[in-house]
Amino acid sequence: MSLRISDIQQGLREKSFSATELATQALADIERMNPAINAFTHVTQQRMLDEAAHTDQCIARNEELPPLAGVPYAVKNLFDISGITTLAGARLFRDNPPASHDAFAIRQLQHAGASLAGALNMDAYAYGFTTENTHYGATHNPHDLSRVAGGSSGGSAAAVAAGLVNFSLGTDTNGSIRVPSSLCGIFGLKPTFGRLSRSGSQPFVASLDHIGPMARHVEDLALVYDVLQGDDPHDHFQARRAPALIGQDLTPERPLRCVVLGDYFDTWCDNDARDAVNRVARGLQAAESITLPQAEMARSAAFLLSAAEGGNHYLPLLRTKPEEFEPNSRDRLLAGAMTPSAWYTQAQRFRAWFRDITLPLFNNFDILIAPATPCCATEIGQQTMRINQCDLPVKASMGMLTQPISFLGLPVVTVPLITTGGLPIGVQLIGAPWQEKRCLQAAQSLVLQNICQAAPVQDCVP
Amino acid sequence: MSLRISDIQQGLREKSFSATELATQALADIERMNPAINAFTHVTQQRMLDEAAHTDQCIARNEELPPLAGVPYAVKNLFDISGITTLAGARLFRDNPPASHDAFAIRQLQHAGASLAGALNMDAYAYGFTTENTHYGATHNPHDLSRVAGGSSGGSAAAVAAGLVNFSLGTDTNGSIRVPSSLCGIFGLKPTFGRLSRSGSQPFVASLDHIGPMARHVEDLALVYDVLQGDDPHDHFQARRAPALIGQDLTPERPLRCVVLGDYFDTWCDNDARDAVNRVARGLQAAESITLPQAEMARSAAFLLSAAEGGNHYLPLLRTKPEEFEPNSRDRLLAGAMTPSAWYTQAQRFRAWFRDITLPLFNNFDILIAPATPCCATEIGQQTMRINQCDLPVKASMGMLTQPISFLGLPVVTVPLITTGGLPIGVQLIGAPWQEKRCLQAAQSLVLQNICQAAPVQDCVP
Repeated sequence: MSLRISDIQQGLREKSFSATELATQALADIERMNPAINAFTHVTQQRMLDEAAHTDQCIARNEELPPLAGVPYAVKNLFDISGITTLAGARLFRDNPPASHDAFAIRQLQHAGASLAGALNMDAYAYGFTTENTHYGATHNPHDLSRVAGGSSGGSAAAVAAGLVNFSLGTDTNGSIRVPSSLCGIFGLKPTFGRLSRSGSQPFVASLDHIGPMARHVEDLALVYDVLQGDDPHDHFQARRAPALIGQDLTPERPLRCVVLGDYFDTWCDNDARDAVNRVARGLQAAESITLPQAEMARSAAFLLSAAEGGNHYLPLLRTKPEEFEPNSRDRLLAGAMTPSAWYTQAQRFRAWFRDITLPLFNNFDILIAPATPCCATEIGQQTMRINQCDLPVKASMGMLTQPISFLGLPVVTVPLITTGGLPIGVQLIGAPWQEKRCLQAAQSLVLQNICQAAPVQDCVP
Repeated sequence: MSLRISDIQQGLREKSFSATELATQALADIERMNPAINAFTHVTQQRMLDEAAHTDQCIARNEELPPLAGVPYAVKNLFDISGITTLAGARLFRDNPPASHDAFAIRQLQHAGASLAGALNMDAYAYGFTTENTHYGATHNPHDLSRVAGGSSGGSAAAVAAGLVNFSLGTDTNGSIRVPSSLCGIFGLKPTFGRLSRSGSQPFVASLDHIGPMARHVEDLALVYDVLQGDDPHDHFQARRAPALIGQDLTPERPLRCVVLGDYFDTWCDNDARDAVNRVARGLQAAESITLPQAEMARSAAFLLSAAEGGNHYLPLLRTKPEEFEPNSRDRLLAGAMTPSAWYTQAQRFRAWFRDITLPLFNNFDILIAPATPCCATEIGQQTMRINQCDLPVKASMGMLTQPISFLGLPVVTVPLITTGGLPIGVQLIGAPWQEKRCLQAAQSLVLQNICQAAPVQDCVP
C-alpha cells in the first residue's frame, strides 16, 4: 500500500494487478495486522470486494476509469456507511440502527471508484487527542505499538501508516486530523472551514468541525480532496469549489512566501518538534519568525466552544444514559453544557476579533509554519508529558498547537518528518482561507527536497 | 413636515423655501413640541443649521443637489454623533466621552445632504418595546400623549409621527423599528439581516441587530434606504448592495403573490389588528392564509439569544456598576449572561432549522402579511394587556409578532392604518431575504389604494 494512487491507476490499466487483487490483499493485511493496532472497528469486506469487482468489470469493458478506481480506503467511524451502525467512537450508539445512506463524502469516493475497507477507531464523540477509547480500546501507533496513534482520527492515521489502505477520511475539530497525522507520520489535510460538506457525519462542534483526507503521498491527498469537493445540496456552507488539482504537478506559480510561527508555537514544543520546524523552514526558505498574537487565548476559546456545543449536542443523552458515556469525556460535556452563555458568546466574539487581527498576516505570507504536536507519540496510558519544563496532561495538550489554527478555520497540510529517535513528527503548513492549493504545493516541494516523507510502512504483527 | 422628500427637493430647486428655513422650522417645532412627547434627548441645533447652510450654498452656486439635500432627520441615540455622547438610552453611558466620529449611516446621510436635528429617546440598551425609560423618561405617543410610542426606537417613531423631522433612523433586534412604527402610525423598514452596516451604533444582540429607516411616506423610506446602502469597509457582512430605488415608481414588475400568516399571528392580536390585516390582505389580493410553523418557539429562541448576547455585552458593567442600570432590564441581562450555553446553542441550532423550513414559503409567495403589534398603543405605565383572553405583560408582549420574523432576518416594511377608534396600527409586509424592494412595492400599492397612510401629523402641545 505504498503505491501512489497514480501507480494503482497505471497498474490497473496495464493489468499488472486487478482491483480485486488489491482489495483481497488489503483485507488480508487488515486481518493480519489490525489485532495489533486496533485501527478498524468494522471491516466492510463484502462491500470492498463488490466495489473492486465493479472496477474490474469496467476494466474488462475497457471503460475509462474514474480517478480513484480500485483504491482501498477507510473512514473514521463517525461517517455514515449504509448498512452499518455509525458509532462515532461511542458505546452510546452501539445499538443504533444501521445507517440508511452513505455520508456525502463516501458517495463522492464511491462514485470516483474507490473501494471501502471499513470504519476506523476514534476518540468517543471525536473529543480527544489520543484515541484511548475506553469502550473500543486504544489504537496503537504502527511505528511503536506501545504508543498512541493520536486522535481523535487515530484509526484513520494508523490504518494509513500501517499500509492497510491508501488513504482515509478523518475529521478535525481542534486538531483531530493533524495530531494523528503527526504522530503516525503521514500527510493530512484539514481544508478551510466550510469547504467540504460534512453531511452524513456525526457532528461534534458545528462551528469548528471539518472533514478531510489523510494519505501517504501529497498527490494522493490532493486527488482525494478534489473528489470530496462535490456539490451537496444539503451542505449549509455551499463553499466555492476549488479548481481541480488532478493532473497538476503542484509546482507553485511563483515562489511561496513562508514564515515560521514563533512564541507560543516555539515555546510549547520539544526539540524534536523544533528541529522538524527548522528543517521545513529551511526547505521553504522561511527566514523569519512572527507571532500569532493571542494564540493561547484562541486555544482557550476553542476549548470553550467545543465543550459548550458538544455539551449541547449530547445533553439529552447525558440526561438519560450517563452511564453509557466515555468516562474521559462525560464530565467535560456536562460542564460544557452548563457553561454560562456569556462565556460562549465571548468566545465567539473573540473569534471574530482574532480572525480580523490575524488574517492580514496573509498579505505578506502564503504559508505559516508551526509544529503539529508538541512532541512525538507518547506511551498509551501516559498521563503527562514534559514540555517547556511543565508537566502537561497528554490528553488535553497534544492538540495545543493545532487548536488556535482550526479556530481560525484556516487550511492546513500536516507534513511528516522522521526525528533522530526514529519516531515521526508532523509540521503544519498553514494557508490563507481557501488556499488549500498553496499548502499542498508547499508540502510537495518539501517532498521533492526529501525533507518530508511518510514514515516507512510498518508490519505490525508483533 | 408632511412634505415628501421629493417635494423638498423641488421646493429647494424652485426656491420656494431654503434649507435653512426648513431647519429653523424643525428646530422651532422641536422646541415647542418635544417637552410634551420627549422624543429628543439631544438637539444638534448648530450642526443642523450648518448642514442646512451648506445645502443653501450649493443651491446658490447652482450645484446639483444630493438626494436628501436639506431634509431634516434625527437618529436613535445609539448611533454615534461626532461630538456628543452616545447614550443608547442608558444612564450608564451618561459620562462617557463624546463620540469622535459619526456612525457610518450618519456619514451616508450627511453625504446625501440631510440635516441632522439630534438624537432620540429609546429603551435602555434597545431592550424593550415601549420606550418607558426610567432615567430619560417615557416617550409619549403623538396621537395620544397618555400612551406609549412603542420601542425600543420610540423617539424615532414619535419624532416622525409628530412631524418634527421627515425621517429617522431606528434599530430593530426583536421588533424595535416595527413596533413603534405600528403604534405611532408611520412606515418603517427593517432590511434583511446584514444588508446595512451597523458600524458606529451601540450593539445589543450581534446576531439579531438591524438598522433601518422610519418615515411618513413609502418613497421616502426607499430613498433613505438607498442612501444607507454604502460600502463600509468595517462592515463584517459586506452584503450585496441592492439596485437603487431612487426615481423608480415602485410599481411591481409582475403581480406580487401575497398571503396572510394565520394561527400564531391571528391568535395573539385583537380585532383592531385583525381588521388592519384584513384590509391589507384585500388590497394585496391575498386570499389564503398559511402557517409559519413553530413561530412561538422562534419567539422563545429570540428571547434567549437576546438575553444571552445582551447579557454578555453588559456583563463587565453589570459587575462594576449594577446600580446604574435600567431597573427594567438589569435582572434579565444578568440572568441572560448566566443562561447555560446549551440553551444558547440550542436556540442557534433551532434558528438554522427554522430558517430551512420557513424559507421555502417564498417559493410560492412574495409577501407574508402579519400584524406588527397585537393591538394599538397602550397607556404609559400600563402593566398588562388583554389579548386572546390572556393578560399579557405589555413590555414583553408588544413585540411578540415581530420577534419570529427578525429571528429569520427577513426584510419587513411596516405599513400604518387607522383603526375605528382613531389610533394607528401597523401591519408587517414580510419579504424573502434581500427582497426589500418587493416589500416597498407592496406598501406603495396599499398607499395608492388609500388603504395605508401615515396617521395625520399631530400638534403635540397640550
